Amino acid sequence: MPEKKQVNKSKKRVDARAKVTGKAKFGADLKFHNMLYGQVVRTEYPHAKIININKSKAEEYPGVEVVMTAEDIPNNLFGVIIENQQVLAEDRVLYIGDGVAMLAARSKKAAREAAKLIEVEYEELPGVYGVEEARQADSPVVMPGEENNQVIHHPLRKGDVSEGLTEADIVMERKYTTQFVEHAYIEPEAVTVVPEERNTLVTVYGAVQNPNATRDAVANVLDCDLSKVRIIQDNMGGSFGGKDENISAMACRAAVMALATNKPVQLVNSREESIIESYKRHPYTMNYKIGAKDDGELVAMEIEAVADSGAYACQTPFVTWRSVVQATGPYEVPNVKTDTYGFYTNSPYTGAMRGYGSPPVIFAQESMMDELAAELDLTPAEIRRKNMFKNNSRTASNQKLDNHEVSLTEVMDKALSAIDYHDKYEKYNQPQDSTIKRGIGFAISYRGVSLGAEAIDAAGAIVSVQKDGSIILYSGLAENGQGLKTVFSQIAAEELGVSLERITHMETDTSVSPESGSTVASRSTLVGGSAVKKAAENIKTVIAEFVAEEYDYSGKIIYRDDALYTKEGERIVAFPELAATAFHNGVFLSSYGWYKAPGISWDEETGQGRPYFTYVYGCQAAEVEVDTGTGEVKVVNMSAAHDVGKAINPANVRGQIYGGAVMALGHALMEDLGFSKGFIKHTNFDEYLIPTVKDAPENIEAIIVENPDPAGPYGAKSIGEPAMELGGAAINNAIAQATGRRLRDLPLNLERVLLGRNLSKED
Amino acid sequence: MPEKKQVNKSKKRVDARAKVTGKAKFGADLKFHNMLYGQVVRTEYPHAKIININKSKAEEYPGVEVVMTAEDIPNNLFGVIIENQQVLAEDRVLYIGDGVAMLAARSKKAAREAAKLIEVEYEELPGVYGVEEARQADSPVVMPGEENNQVIHHPLRKGDVSEGLTEADIVMERKYTTQFVEHAYIEPEAVTVVPEERNTLVTVYGAVQNPNATRDAVANVLDCDLSKVRIIQDNMGGSFGGKDENISAMACRAAVMALATNKPVQLVNSREESIIESYKRHPYTMNYKIGAKDDGELVAMEIEAVADSGAYACQTPFVTWRSVVQATGPYEVPNVKTDTYGFYTNSPYTGAMRGYGSPPVIFAQESMMDELAAELDLTPAEIRRKNMFKNNSRTASNQKLDNHEVSLTEVMDKALSAIDYHDKYEKYNQPQDSTIKRGIGFAISYRGVSLGAEAIDAAGAIVSVQKDGSIILYSGLAENGQGLKTVFSQIAAEELGVSLERITHMETDTSVSPESGSTVASRSTLVGGSAVKKAAENIKTVIAEFVAEEYDYSGKIIYRDDALYTKEGERIVAFPELAATAFHNGVFLSSYGWYKAPGISWDEETGQGRPYFTYVYGCQAAEVEVDTGTGEVKVVNMSAAHDVGKAINPANVRGQIYGGAVMALGHALMEDLGFSKGFIKHTNFDEYLIPTVKDAPENIEAIIVENPDPAGPYGAKSIGEPAMELGGAAINNAIAQATGRRLRDLPLNLERVLLGRNLSKED
Repeated sequence: MPEKKQVNKSKKRVDARAKVTGKAKFGADLKFHNMLYGQVVRTEYPHAKIININKSKAEEYPGVEVVMTAEDIPNNLFGVIIENQQVLAEDRVLYIGDGVAMLAARSKKAAREAAKLIEVEYEELPGVYGVEEARQADSPVVMPGEENNQVIHHPLRKGDVSEGLTEADIVMERKYTTQFVEHAYIEPEAVTVVPEERNTLVTVYGAVQNPNATRDAVANVLDCDLSKVRIIQDNMGGSFGGKDENISAMACRAAVMALATNKPVQLVNSREESIIESYKRHPYTMNYKIGAKDDGELVAMEIEAVADSGAYACQTPFVTWRSVVQATGPYEVPNVKTDTYGFYTNSPYTGAMRGYGSPPVIFAQESMMDELAAELDLTPAEIRRKNMFKNNSRTASNQKLDNHEVSLTEVMDKALSAIDYHDKYEKYNQPQDSTIKRGIGFAISYRGVSLGAEAIDAAGAIVSVQKDGSIILYSGLAENGQGLKTVFSQIAAEELGVSLERITHMETDTSVSPESGSTVASRSTLVGGSAVKKAAENIKTVIAEFVAEEYDYSGKIIYRDDALYTKEGERIVAFPELAATAFHNGVFLSSYGWYKAPGISWDEETGQGRPYFTYVYGCQAAEVEVDTGTGEVKVVNMSAAHDVGKAINPANVRGQIYGGAVMALGHALMEDLGFSKGFIKHTNFDEYLIPTVKDAPENIEAIIVENPDPAGPYGAKSIGEPAMELGGAAINNAIAQATGRRLRDLPLNLERVLLGRNLSKED
Repeated sequence: MPEKKQVNKSKKRVDARAKVTGKAKFGADLKFHNMLYGQVVRTEYPHAKIININKSKAEEYPGVEVVMTAEDIPNNLFGVIIENQQVLAEDRVLYIGDGVAMLAARSKKAAREAAKLIEVEYEELPGVYGVEEARQADSPVVMPGEENNQVIHHPLRKGDVSEGLTEADIVMERKYTTQFVEHAYIEPEAVTVVPEERNTLVTVYGAVQNPNATRDAVANVLDCDLSKVRIIQDNMGGSFGGKDENISAMACRAAVMALATNKPVQLVNSREESIIESYKRHPYTMNYKIGAKDDGELVAMEIEAVADSGAYACQTPFVTWRSVVQATGPYEVPNVKTDTYGFYTNSPYTGAMRGYGSPPVIFAQESMMDELAAELDLTPAEIRRKNMFKNNSRTASNQKLDNHEVSLTEVMDKALSAIDYHDKYEKYNQPQDSTIKRGIGFAISYRGVSLGAEAIDAAGAIVSVQKDGSIILYSGLAENGQGLKTVFSQIAAEELGVSLERITHMETDTSVSPESGSTVASRSTLVGGSAVKKAAENIKTVIAEFVAEEYDYSGKIIYRDDALYTKEGERIVAFPELAATAFHNGVFLSSYGWYKAPGISWDEETGQGRPYFTYVYGCQAAEVEVDTGTGEVKVVNMSAAHDVGKAINPANVRGQIYGGAVMALGHALMEDLGFSKGFIKHTNFDEYLIPTVKDAPENIEAIIVENPDPAGPYGAKSIGEPAMELGGAAINNAIAQATGRRLRDLPLNLERVLLGRNLSKED
């Protein structure tokens, strides 16, 4: 195997220069001739009837070009799974972020001032807040037209849980909860819609995480062909799963106003608007019942996990489905019964966020494993080693893990060793005489790569060699700031043996880029990267034919150092010269690449099947310092070992690990929207706290474990979400060691840590 | 063969609605945020040294953001064949359109006023005007660095001309000339360059006939990769070959200023600027010597054709090459010697214009055939029938015409019959006693389709089926207003059996569309249409596999009426449902299509070979009324029969014929730039006369002759230029009959017709 020149290298980001020089434009930087500024008027109540909307004063405000309500919208509904999101609320508002009217004006100020003149008369309705209430038979029904508040129920049945629990030497039952979490992307949402630009009805510019879903929504709302809506992706200042449905809603709103005025319309959310309107991470309420033998062998798990879907279905059916697969953790359990639900409430709706359905269940599962270990007088490491997946293990859905290396031992050993876990664990088990106490904890996981059996898992790319040897690359998956363009450029450069500078990675454009699903599920490198590789391989097939004819060489061609070589190492031709010669001979060097994930399956009745075609394995450990006088927790060290298959760009992988660990830290310790009956109290970063560099551990040891996966390009799998799902449990386990008290509710804030207080009564 | 539903039908133009409602945007309609208006300062003399340029006053003018001269341009040269065009003149101006400085300002007015403040000091130089002078050994050399003024010389030698002339019963020698002609597109040139838009260094918007050539020029001038320059085509208000190099020059200028100011820069020519700066049709001076037997059989032709290239080489080498192939007309001539030249002069440079190198030589050739017929007391029809190509004839380059039907007899019979030629010919040969006299004449031609052996002849397209069954189509060839988008959409719709409304034909975009050469040479339908067809066929291959799997049908699929049928006529699935189902199964329904023209060859030393892979055949006849008291000519009727292989859109074909005939009428009778030593007198349409509806014949009978060509999509060949190349000779022959006097110089203006005066002395 010759050494790789472009992949497995920490190449500088291809968009680094534009970003650090400020040249990169983000959604709100875009300016179009004659552009109008849009403003949305949102409800004053989380749940209310709209009695009347008077827009006449706003219409008269100087500079206002259009004022619209739901009745002005051709088709007011959209939704990625269940079509029940409203572009603007018709007769009822369902959560505090619902828009009731909108307008567009020639200045931002006019838009803002005129919006204040729109008079809406409401009749407040009793709301449903929290899944406990939503599940009651007599609960008000949130979603008009539904019989009750259940969005989804995923059952999983393996073996016989009753029997398993009977056979167990010990049965423990615990309740865990997690909170709503804000994505807290640094760039609030911004879209601009240009009407009738060239061949489309509308062109949407902005940071759109899922361009094709936004295209679906806009085409649906405008009642036109998909080909008539074009979404052109711009630089994204963070998304983390959060710029999907809410951006679609904004795009729909701006599109309707753009067509009404025949001018470009820009909608930019302020931070407050963003926090009030955007969807959140699902809060979960989880009941875990585990049966084990005295030696720690797991025999049964019975789990109920209930997610708060908020006002709309959004991605709840899929988010909760991932919870099903990961709820039992990376452990062999012969008897499993899980029931995972989503319920409507009048809280903000919830959707995709980094980790999707896994961080809540891993928080519960990996906290519970420590509780069980303590009960059985085993160490956290012992109980995990006893039960964790090995090669050919069978998962809760009865999938045999035989596709490649199950590296849980390796990731756990490496993460624990890096943080000096065992010594510290012993040490912190000894009495600590300061009020500042230390603890160490860890968590492990397995995680299905990509979308899984409930969605279409395929992606496409275009690689186009120009006649001067420069290369244009398009991907159906969008750069979200995670480094996708760099990784894809590296793959194209590696395949064609050229320097990275030859590649121009274009933005995703729905009228050009193959529809590839969303940039989610940590799927881009494997699925999208494979498509890029395939496109380059297709071109090499054409080149091989041409080389045979033009240069009289039919053997294997080695592509390296911007040239083509024979297998004996003799230079055939420089790459740019090849490109020019091929062009002048009418040989076409552009190709689509298309990758379809290997076969997967799922039985929705039983929760059995092959939900994912491959998995990643990870372990994160955290060392904390708890001020037992105040409840303040400082995470002093973390280690994180992740089997990524193969790192295309090790520096990027480490970046993902650092970011994921710190995001998990925020989830664990501080993030809190301050809900009160559907109202959000913390609508900006002065009150909604996210970790800063002061909160980050002094050291995060990022360990890249590589067991190349045959399914991925050069063996690569994924890292984006795996890096975020473990920190909460690891920190919680560390706090438990430091304080001697087990917490079960996120966030682990001052009060809970200080008082050791949980929401449920088991404690 | 089932009936075609989408092709061979006069479908409404796909861009008709946008154009008639005024929604279609042209280059000068584009507006960008912060856009600057550019202004070019042009030379005051056709040939001069630049002594000094003082730009300081202009720089101080309020609103001016940049003033530039040649020294500010990274690489000042470009050129499609010979790189000798200057973006701005350095030390010497070569023609009256040369730019010497440019600026960009925040308003059009500031740009215009500031431009007047740029002070240029010149030293006038003796100029070279006309090829007679340019050919002299002691002529000043126009192009710095060259030894003499010759741009190109194409010889052709077949048989032995001296011997042929000796064997002839009659030898005639005549000199013909043609004039400079303005393209007279209704939309003057307009481009806007946006700097650093997303992933490119510059994006160029505007009506660009040859987007890839403009990309070449801009990348060359900016010294960057081709992938960093993006050309996005906008609606084009006519081109006729004229929006190529001049648009490239404008794009280069705007690009340099856009990068200097970091703002979009728009350059729009006024009509005067357009006429002064843009390249023209080549004027030709042609000497024809023909030897024939008494019965009319041609035995030898010796031809010298000399084209005025003006100040730059531009496309002169290729334009004159087409003259070589067509100079002897569609006649079997055993002994041929032709020498075709281009020479630099200090006149405006000349380049591509509808017909390319053929209208001048056809004017000469087909006038000469009538002169010869008269001399031999044969009718024009008799002498042509005697000599014209039949199946398997050999051309002057010794190409055997065996690829498909040589339909000269058919086109001639149909054109002559439609205008009632024979009766009228007899009638007008009788003495006419009015001062208003009538005459009728005609001409025939064969014309090579597409670029021919001196260029790369391949084209690509993208057909992309979206999941709702709507279809996005990209072509590397650009819509010039001729109806290309309609024809390509029809082809895609026909192949996939869908209605035309499903297709969205995008504009050519060099970062998306396959590089396909220029929309010239009447090649689009055959070459580009074949690429569209191929892309659709590729998709059908994928669909067939999917249908076998999903619908259990493996036979031939019939695509019609927006659905798929078995060969027995049973409906398999509706097209939109197929698209959705394929998408949900991860089946990819987008494809490139690539078409490479069949092999051709050319020996530049002898002018022998297969210059084109196929030919079209045409005949046009004209009936004129000449006021012998004033010299005024009125063309009262025309007929035109063209073998187009197969008409994809008969209404479009007829439109091309009408337009071509009227354009030829302008060329023949009135178009005159009024040159005087390199200066242009007629710089607007008040003085530069082009035909209006008042000048057009009352009737133009357009006859579509169809002998499907195996090389073309559904047998289609071409029509754009063939429709323009015959009218001049036909009208001249009709005038000769009416007046009894043979004219040999275009235009056939009042004075020449009245006085029967020719420039040369043979008469």
